[in-house]
Amino acid sequence: SRRRKAARRDMTVSRRTQPGAAPGLVLADPSAPRPVIHVMAYGSEDFAEFDAATPDAACDQIGKHPLVWINVEGLGDAVAIERFGELLNLHRLSLEDTVNVHQRAKIEDFGNVLFVVLRMVGCGERCNTEQLSMFVGGNYLLTFQEGTPGDSFDRVRGRLREGNGKVRQLGSDYLAYTLIDAAIDNYYPVLEVYAERLDELEDQVLEPRNREVMKRLHEVKSDLLILRRAIWPLRDALAQLGRQDVPRISDYTRVYLRDCYDHVVQVVELIETYRELTADLRDLHMSSVSNRINDTMRVLTIISTIFIPLTFVAGIYGMNFDYMPELRWRYGYHMTIAIMIVSTIGMVIFFYRQGWIFANKPTEI
Amino acid sequence: SRRRKAARRDMTVSRRTQPGAAPGLVLADPSAPRPVIHVMAYGSEDFAEFDAATPDAACDQIGKHPLVWINVEGLGDAVAIERFGELLNLHRLSLEDTVNVHQRAKIEDFGNVLFVVLRMVGCGERCNTEQLSMFVGGNYLLTFQEGTPGDSFDRVRGRLREGNGKVRQLGSDYLAYTLIDAAIDNYYPVLEVYAERLDELEDQVLEPRNREVMKRLHEVKSDLLILRRAIWPLRDALAQLGRQDVPRISDYTRVYLRDCYDHVVQVVELIETYRELTADLRDLHMSSVSNRINDTMRVLTIISTIFIPLTFVAGIYGMNFDYMPELRWRYGYHMTIAIMIVSTIGMVIFFYRQGWIFANKPTEI
Amino acid sequence: SRRRKAARRDMTVSRRTQPGAAPGLVLADPSAPRPVIHVMAYGSEDFAEFDAATPDAACDQIGKHPLVWINVEGLGDAVAIERFGELLNLHRLSLEDTVNVHQRAKIEDFGNVLFVVLRMVGCGERCNTEQLSMFVGGNYLLTFQEGTPGDSFDRVRGRLREGNGKVRQLGSDYLAYTLIDAAIDNYYPVLEVYAERLDELEDQVLEPRNREVMKRLHEVKSDLLILRRAIWPLRDALAQLGRQDVPRISDYTRVYLRDCYDHVVQVVELIETYRELTADLRDLHMSSVSNRINDTMRVLTIISTIFIPLTFVAGIYGMNFDYMPELRWRYGYHMTIAIMIVSTIGMVIFFYRQGWIFANKPTEI
Amino acid sequence: SRRRKAARRDMTVSRRTQPGAAPGLVLADPSAPRPVIHVMAYGSEDFAEFDAATPDAACDQIGKHPLVWINVEGLGDAVAIERFGELLNLHRLSLEDTVNVHQRAKIEDFGNVLFVVLRMVGCGERCNTEQLSMFVGGNYLLTFQEGTPGDSFDRVRGRLREGNGKVRQLGSDYLAYTLIDAAIDNYYPVLEVYAERLDELEDQVLEPRNREVMKRLHEVKSDLLILRRAIWPLRDALAQLGRQDVPRISDYTRVYLRDCYDHVVQVVELIETYRELTADLRDLHMSSVSNRINDTMRVLTIISTIFIPLTFVAGIYGMNFDYMPELRWRYGYHMTIAIMIVSTIGMVIFFYRQGWIFANKPTEI
Amino acid sequence: SRRRKAARRDMTVSRRTQPGAAPGLVLADPSAPRPVIHVMAYGSEDFAEFDAATPDAACDQIGKHPLVWINVEGLGDAVAIERFGELLNLHRLSLEDTVNVHQRAKIEDFGNVLFVVLRMVGCGERCNTEQLSMFVGGNYLLTFQEGTPGDSFDRVRGRLREGNGKVRQLGSDYLAYTLIDAAIDNYYPVLEVYAERLDELEDQVLEPRNREVMKRLHEVKSDLLILRRAIWPLRDALAQLGRQDVPRISDYTRVYLRDCYDHVVQVVELIETYRELTADLRDLHMSSVSNRINDTMRVLTIISTIFIPLTFVAGIYGMNFDYMPELRWRYGYHMTIAIMIVSTIGMVIFFYRQGWIFANKPTEI
Repeated sequence: SRRRKAARRDMTVSRRTQPGAAPGLVLADPSAPRPVIHVMAYGSEDFAEFDAATPDAACDQIGKHPLVWINVEGLGDAVAIERFGELLNLHRLSLEDTVNVHQRAKIEDFGNVLFVVLRMVGCGERCNTEQLSMFVGGNYLLTFQEGTPGDSFDRVRGRLREGNGKVRQLGSDYLAYTLIDAAIDNYYPVLEVYAERLDELEDQVLEPRNREVMKRLHEVKSDLLILRRAIWPLRDALAQLGRQDVPRISDYTRVYLRDCYDHVVQVVELIETYRELTADLRDLHMSSVSNRINDTMRVLTIISTIFIPLTFVAGIYGMNFDYMPELRWRYGYHMTIAIMIVSTIGMVIFFYRQGWIFANKPTEI
Repeated sequence: SRRRKAARRDMTVSRRTQPGAAPGLVLADPSAPRPVIHVMAYGSEDFAEFDAATPDAACDQIGKHPLVWINVEGLGDAVAIERFGELLNLHRLSLEDTVNVHQRAKIEDFGNVLFVVLRMVGCGERCNTEQLSMFVGGNYLLTFQEGTPGDSFDRVRGRLREGNGKVRQLGSDYLAYTLIDAAIDNYYPVLEVYAERLDELEDQVLEPRNREVMKRLHEVKSDLLILRRAIWPLRDALAQLGRQDVPRISDYTRVYLRDCYDHVVQVVELIETYRELTADLRDLHMSSVSNRINDTMRVLTIISTIFIPLTFVAGIYGMNFDYMPELRWRYGYHMTIAIMIVSTIGMVIFFYRQGWIFANKPTEI
Repeated sequence: SRRRKAARRDMTVSRRTQPGAAPGLVLADPSAPRPVIHVMAYGSEDFAEFDAATPDAACDQIGKHPLVWINVEGLGDAVAIERFGELLNLHRLSLEDTVNVHQRAKIEDFGNVLFVVLRMVGCGERCNTEQLSMFVGGNYLLTFQEGTPGDSFDRVRGRLREGNGKVRQLGSDYLAYTLIDAAIDNYYPVLEVYAERLDELEDQVLEPRNREVMKRLHEVKSDLLILRRAIWPLRDALAQLGRQDVPRISDYTRVYLRDCYDHVVQVVELIETYRELTADLRDLHMSSVSNRINDTMRVLTIISTIFIPLTFVAGIYGMNFDYMPELRWRYGYHMTIAIMIVSTIGMVIFFYRQGWIFANKPTEI
Repeated sequence: SRRRKAARRDMTVSRRTQPGAAPGLVLADPSAPRPVIHVMAYGSEDFAEFDAATPDAACDQIGKHPLVWINVEGLGDAVAIERFGELLNLHRLSLEDTVNVHQRAKIEDFGNVLFVVLRMVGCGERCNTEQLSMFVGGNYLLTFQEGTPGDSFDRVRGRLREGNGKVRQLGSDYLAYTLIDAAIDNYYPVLEVYAERLDELEDQVLEPRNREVMKRLHEVKSDLLILRRAIWPLRDALAQLGRQDVPRISDYTRVYLRDCYDHVVQVVELIETYRELTADLRDLHMSSVSNRINDTMRVLTIISTIFIPLTFVAGIYGMNFDYMPELRWRYGYHMTIAIMIVSTIGMVIFFYRQGWIFANKPTEI
Repeated sequence: SRRRKAARRDMTVSRRTQPGAAPGLVLADPSAPRPVIHVMAYGSEDFAEFDAATPDAACDQIGKHPLVWINVEGLGDAVAIERFGELLNLHRLSLEDTVNVHQRAKIEDFGNVLFVVLRMVGCGERCNTEQLSMFVGGNYLLTFQEGTPGDSFDRVRGRLREGNGKVRQLGSDYLAYTLIDAAIDNYYPVLEVYAERLDELEDQVLEPRNREVMKRLHEVKSDLLILRRAIWPLRDALAQLGRQDVPRISDYTRVYLRDCYDHVVQVVELIETYRELTADLRDLHMSSVSNRINDTMRVLTIISTIFIPLTFVAGIYGMNFDYMPELRWRYGYHMTIAIMIVSTIGMVIFFYRQGWIFANKPTEI
């Protein structure tokens, strides 16, 4: 639970610079991993791949190959990030957004580059998310990740290395699309995990004594809340990218981005569907708890209604009055017992007719 | 219940290609049925109909008749589908969408063809849905279905064979409209099934001991959720088709598509109405459970309130003190019994006045 | 209740032609009443009124008078309706909509005529609705009603016969407005019925034992749902009519149609207000049920808490041990009784202080 | 409560002319007060004020002074109102709206005049509302009020009489603004009354036995519903007035009307906030009722759980078997009592550990 | 609690001038602090800072330096504020809005100045808010604060004094942006406080006896309501500022204002997320209360069901009939006890099988 809270806090409130500080201040989180700079430089014919030691070494490739993809994993070094800003003439605000990793997904056009921010989701034990910041330049693509181990881009790298498919012939916008598409496709397995969880919970909501159900439903619901917050703004951002008037996006790529948009809308709708389903399951569980209270009450009422009057009758003849004629009768005792049995049978018949006992439906108290 | 879950999972999460894979990858589901290619080629005067063995045989007809409708049932053969793509110059993304059968309904204009995706609904024991993908070309219409046995197009085929009505004189856009219209009209009988189910449930919600009600309401509600997800995006897609600026749609057909749009809106509104009704019924049921708890409590309280004090009085005179003057009285016993009877009558009158017993409205515990 | 369900079914699911059938198929409901064709032909000076035996006889008047209003009550004769279509050159889809009587309110411009569909509401024992289809031509107005006995147009007919007011001098658009206005005005008395019902229910919701309340609130709520579905689409349709660019609507009439639009919005808002009120009343009732459970519990708890310990004490001295010194005491019995009385008084004081008994507010159990 | 219902009925359903009647029919409510016509005619220099006996006497002033404000209180005389219509050439529909006093707030441009309708609110014991209809002409302003005693315009009249401020130099649009502003400002004290009521209720919701709370929350909620209905349409109307293209509104006045618009939005948001608060308080109260049921149950369970087993033990030794060895023991009685005391202490310790009794938090049953 | 109510009243209902008073009336709250006028006059090269005694002394600097920032803390002196209005030619309505401190955030363009109003939030023990009014002129920026001790602008002042960064080179629009940005950044720590509170409450909601939970959830919810009301209108206002056509805002600054807008949207989304979380926690708590009622009921039912029949049996043999053969049997007593033990064991087994006792999950009553 502590881990969950940490996850939620981490995902909802962003660590921001101090109020009133100069805008565009690049304050790296000291606990963030040190950046690892990976460069892939390629064209239809040529291909080079290496880890660069410094931003300068990485940016040096730009212009020497048709397209250079510089991927920085880890945001722990403000100096390196600022150096990228100087070398590629990036706006300070976009660098600040890169470092303050809880931005809403957005597209910002700075003339020389297109700045794209979105949240990727990873599916470990529970969903964790990571910010992907992209600078789409004319002949380069610069991406920053938070540095969580493992990313969803290995398959993209494989396609670049093998050089089959069209990705080596196309520009930075198409490469950016490829990464965005991979990031969005990653939401599907995460959602599948929640679909499974809801299926399990659906079996359990009708067990009124299962105290975990409500708690787990609450967990699923707040995880879905986090996922929705992560993907929701991406919808608007991609709708904006799919429009005619965004520079740096070719018509060829635009068709693919519209496909991305459709996937995002589908993910958003799935999340909404799951949220409604969760609310339904909660209602169903609450109703089963109410039914159980009802059942418990009924057992108590049946027992009390049968035995309390009988006990009273026994109490009557347990009185010590000197003159109680019935006590002296020869069959007084037997008559009393007989009356008790008859009245009990009457009660049972009454309850049966009311459907309180031996009803056709077994009461699963 | 397992079947229902499978249905829901199947309908909500789409099987997608791996994140990071090349876009437009046509990965056929190996468990999907093998495609059956059915060709209807016709004009006002001529008409031919046959099952084609290969995509080439089918596409060969295009141009030889004014209009060729190629219907492919079953998506189990990626090679055949890719072959259609090559022959008719279809965009890879649209082929991918055809194979990944859980797309949102949409209209995509690729210049040479108009690509339409929507979900049809079938009304067996419970609602199942199937994807219909259409490529509307200049002189052909290519449709793909998932291959669930039985479709709603037999009546359309009959009209084509008989050649009465105008469908043989009109173009591919009108044929596409005809199929869309048939798909939408199929939602009505499905909704009628749910209307009947809600009517039945309305009779049952006031039976507080009926434990199935909440579960069945939940089932209806989540089925309606699935239906809404299937039809909702179709509304936007059809609104888009009804606008002036979509190519390949003639003004003549546009009037008919607007009519389709009206039907979709009506279906959406019906689904919303049923969902609200379901929520109302749930509230009504919960209230009847609460009332029943109240009734059970009342029975218990009446019995306890009458007999517990009486039992106490009996207990008093069951004590074994040596000096209890009442025990020696000649009519002590009779007086005690008399007092008990009088106080019981008093209690009953009190409860009657409070309306707890013998109220004019029979309490249907 | 059966009647109510029938009403709801009738009002929500429309009987449609078979999926896949040719569009514009005019399939009359065989159980619908046979059409009665009533013609009013008039100008500022001339006026004629008669029942026409056939569509031809009715349409024959068109052109002979400045304006001809043909009103058809009853949709049971497909041939007659198709004949109107031929004579006046009406679009097949609009004829289909006329016969399939559960259309959403809409305005469709077919060039030669303006096609208007809306639902009228009648206020008998419970609300029933009827479709009004209008074809607004240049010099005629053709209207179709379902043929429920009685309509709201008698006052309009009176105005036409008497010829005072401007209605005889104005065109078909103004006559159409007059009918639409009358149809909308009819919603007010229906709503007044529901306002009265809610007033009654407001008095009853605080009676926790009234089992009818929830059921009646549910009925009111689902009736309001039906009314909203009937009037809601009319709002958009009238907003569309009030715009500048609809042909056949003169500027003079447009002012009046805007007034109509205001009334529709007012009706929609009233319905929403009543729905919220209904939800509030349901909450209020549920709270009163909870309070009552609380009260019943309290009575039980007071009685049990006072008498169970007393009974225990009596039980103690009812034991038959040989050596129970208290039993032999001279005033043991009196002391026991005294202790019981004192502890009872103590309990009562305790409960009083807790406010459980004799509270200033009378508990209306 | 009867008064409240009357208020609600009066405020929600408008008394309308008969369905099908001619539009623009001015049917005065016979129970409405007779009109009192008050005229203020003024310019920067001149000022005259008098009560006019007839519409003619009032309208006679128009043109003789730069601006004439004719205020009619009371709508009980249809003839007088129709006479104003003739004299000033007002559209019949606007006269009808003036008399049928439950219009939605709206702005209608009739070319020669701008017709404005809105609801004012008065703050007596509970909120009552009154319709204000304004005809903004070139050199006159004609206003109609329902004639509830007292209005919010006395301060405006004072400013006109004293002639300080700019109101005497400006046109009819500014005067109209002044009245609209005064009407909107009147909502604030009314809202303050509800803020106070909610504060009081917030203190009471945690008293579970307070049966008035739910009823009063319901009252506040439905009053807020009425207020929202009164002010909500005014927002759209003022937004429309603040736009560039409305005639008769000068740029100078437009700035002031935008300020009015801001106030209306603020009032609407306040009402929404209060409504959400009311819903929260209801939930809080329901939770306190549930807690109280829980508490009552606990008392009952503690008493029963302690004494029922003890009573059973006493019952055992109250049996009259001839051979019950314990009864003969010398200290059987004392041992039994000792066992009872020990088990009671054990129970109490158990309950204490469970936190059922003597918990640190005093249970405010 | 009184403090909280005061806060809410203060934040929701604005103290307004009397209805009908002249617009633009500057009525200072006599209890508001007296204004302190602080002037910072600077350019790239020059810098002066002092406290001005009068508005004249402050405004005298305008024109002598490239940019003058006049900050007025405290709104207690209407004369001084009106004097600023005269000196800088400010619209009376904007002065009125400055003094009436509960305006919705808005941007108003008065030609010579841009008027910006927004609410800042401070994070003391609970959130308090303060109005910031800004007049953005060509070469000056005039700001008014309510005068709550401490503001978030000290860091901005420091940057101005040190002269590093670009703020000294840029115009009044950039300075205004800097202040707006600081005000918005201040929302983050406040939200963090509520995130912590919700984390604490999440641990407590599953303790059904914790009566504070519901109250504290209610407090958090109404505080979030207030925060939302404070920030919500700012979103629209900033969206307006970010558009192309607002004068006085340079393209350079516009990029920064769009960044501000993103932050506001993020804050709004966080507030919504927290509100949903609060509602979820309330449901979770209510469910735990229901479960606890269930548990208490079960204990009572188990005890009653076991002992009431046993007590009845003991009562039977406590009767004093002369002829009760069992009483004379040698082992009658032992048999009775044996039967009681066996039936108790049977009951316990039954309850165990039903899972009522010794279930694997410990019942945390």
